Amino acid sequence: MKNYKPKGRLKAAEYIKGILKSDRVLLSRAITIVESNLESDKILAKEIVQSILPNSGNSFRIGITGVPGVGKSTFIEAFGIHLIKQGKKVAILSIDPSSQRTKGSILGDKTRMEELANMEEAYIRPSASGDTLGGVANKTGETMLLCEAAGYDVILIETVGVGQSETAVHNMTDFFLLLMLAGAGDELQGIKKGIMEMADMVVINKADGDNITMSKMAKRQYQNALHIFPQADSGWSPVVSTASAIKNIGINNVWEEVGNFKKLVDENGYFLKNRNQQQIKWMYNNINEELKHLFYGSEEISSQLKVLEKEIISSKISPVKAAQNILEQFKKSI
Amino acid sequence: MKNYKPKGRLKAAEYIKGILKSDRVLLSRAITIVESNLESDKILAKEIVQSILPNSGNSFRIGITGVPGVGKSTFIEAFGIHLIKQGKKVAILSIDPSSQRTKGSILGDKTRMEELANMEEAYIRPSASGDTLGGVANKTGETMLLCEAAGYDVILIETVGVGQSETAVHNMTDFFLLLMLAGAGDELQGIKKGIMEMADMVVINKADGDNITMSKMAKRQYQNALHIFPQADSGWSPVVSTASAIKNIGINNVWEEVGNFKKLVDENGYFLKNRNQQQIKWMYNNINEELKHLFYGSEEISSQLKVLEKEIISSKISPVKAAQNILEQFKKSI
Repeated sequence: MKNYKPKGRLKAAEYIKGILKSDRVLLSRAITIVESNLESDKILAKEIVQSILPNSGNSFRIGITGVPGVGKSTFIEAFGIHLIKQGKKVAILSIDPSSQRTKGSILGDKTRMEELANMEEAYIRPSASGDTLGGVANKTGETMLLCEAAGYDVILIETVGVGQSETAVHNMTDFFLLLMLAGAGDELQGIKKGIMEMADMVVINKADGDNITMSKMAKRQYQNALHIFPQADSGWSPVVSTASAIKNIGINNVWEEVGNFKKLVDENGYFLKNRNQQQIKWMYNNINEELKHLFYGSEEISSQLKVLEKEIISSKISPVKAAQNILEQFKKSI
Repeated sequence: MKNYKPKGRLKAAEYIKGILKSDRVLLSRAITIVESNLESDKILAKEIVQSILPNSGNSFRIGITGVPGVGKSTFIEAFGIHLIKQGKKVAILSIDPSSQRTKGSILGDKTRMEELANMEEAYIRPSASGDTLGGVANKTGETMLLCEAAGYDVILIETVGVGQSETAVHNMTDFFLLLMLAGAGDELQGIKKGIMEMADMVVINKADGDNITMSKMAKRQYQNALHIFPQADSGWSPVVSTASAIKNIGINNVWEEVGNFKKLVDENGYFLKNRNQQQIKWMYNNINEELKHLFYGSEEISSQLKVLEKEIISSKISPVKAAQNILEQFKKSI
């Protein structure tokens, strides 16, 4: 394992060559470099990403979300195996900044997808670590590019459906899939506001046995709810279906709908337009994060902000004036 | 009218005294100063706002949105008159950055609320102008504070339901009211994604004559749709009702629901907590806007960004690296 330590790093060209040859070991090691916070690794990572860039982008990218308990791992395993049977190579990545607090990871336990994990055509990579969502999103985004350069046709990016990371995943994928349960009570499912509106497809999972009737009801309910929202820019009307991942029912239907979506957005030009917009947005998100970091990263500013917050609440200073004061201070300090 | 020109400005103390005495003319003139982009006015405005700050905050603030054609003016007129009959003093402000392009304003035509406009207890002020939503939100927010200091008990802030300004209004109000129509087709109503989720109450307007049955159906439909979302932080479950502003039906019910909401959030402590959070957020929004302005306001940066956008789309540079490059450039330039 000593090759995984920074001192054992290879030259950028070796990782690049390995990735383009679909070498899983070198791909994994390159991803480790992309995820690393070491300065020397960051430079190496930039070189690798920059070089494989022309070979990236040739996959279909699917974001999958749903709260814990919805059967996400089982669904992804069934879906992944289905894709491989269709001749695809599938990479499964996860994004979950909240898991970093406990150093845990949604996909940390690979045994949860044992059959898929053992297939040559599948590549499973747990969540990158990082202090900020922006940082994690960068790492997952660049990992996706490396996987594409390594020849994976379909990238599944998993997220937990309870936080901000869904927007990050939505911003880097072509199709957004929301897994739900019937009859769990919508509040209990804790789906964060706005997530449903991003969905291109809602799948009511665990639609088997006694749960079938409830699932069909839920399907109608979500269809009505989605109807409330205006047409998406893609021209696609979100679909709702039922599935039982554990019994492998309805999985093929999900892939068929993805195909329908792909056909539509290829024809109407949205696919390419959206990809380009996502890339541009990725740059701007980075810029905006970094600007904030420049400001809020200062200890002096931080402590001054605490004082201003108290003064605002006690009506000693207006929020607008408080902002102006601290910005003057910031401009002098840089 | 020459007093309205900057050279005819009074001293800050005179505006402050006038506002605290509920002098409508001085209130209007002070708002004009708050809305002004002249540097000398900005200094004067800061002094006025700062002084009246301890006298602000004593109103109930209601955001009202709905797309053009929903009958917003008629509703606000009926609702405002109802409030005045309950012994309230009502200020009606609007926020609509998009209208600035044509120098128009949603409430520009006061004759649309002729009866209300002629009532002593009502104060109607059209949209402030400004280049950015942040700027307009600041002006509307500070205008609200001035109106409160002048003794207005209820502030209605109107917005058009098709843009970003709803979030700004939501951030400065206690209660958010969404006006909808039955049977217009949800897509036609063009309600921007996310707006419905902010609503504390949805009112199906124009529920009269042949439209009553459709309105009742729409009511059920929206009730189901709102049920999908999890409980709001306020502990309040959004309500849906029907109304006919033109026939003055269901208007009292809206005010009753506002009362129910107020009682709940006073008791559970959300009212004060939310107000404090809004104030703090107001400062941070200003800081973040200003930081962006510092960066994007530079012509050199702007032209460099255009180049980078093209390079990203042609896979010459990764979005992350592009962001890093331009930020290095920015840090050197300041």
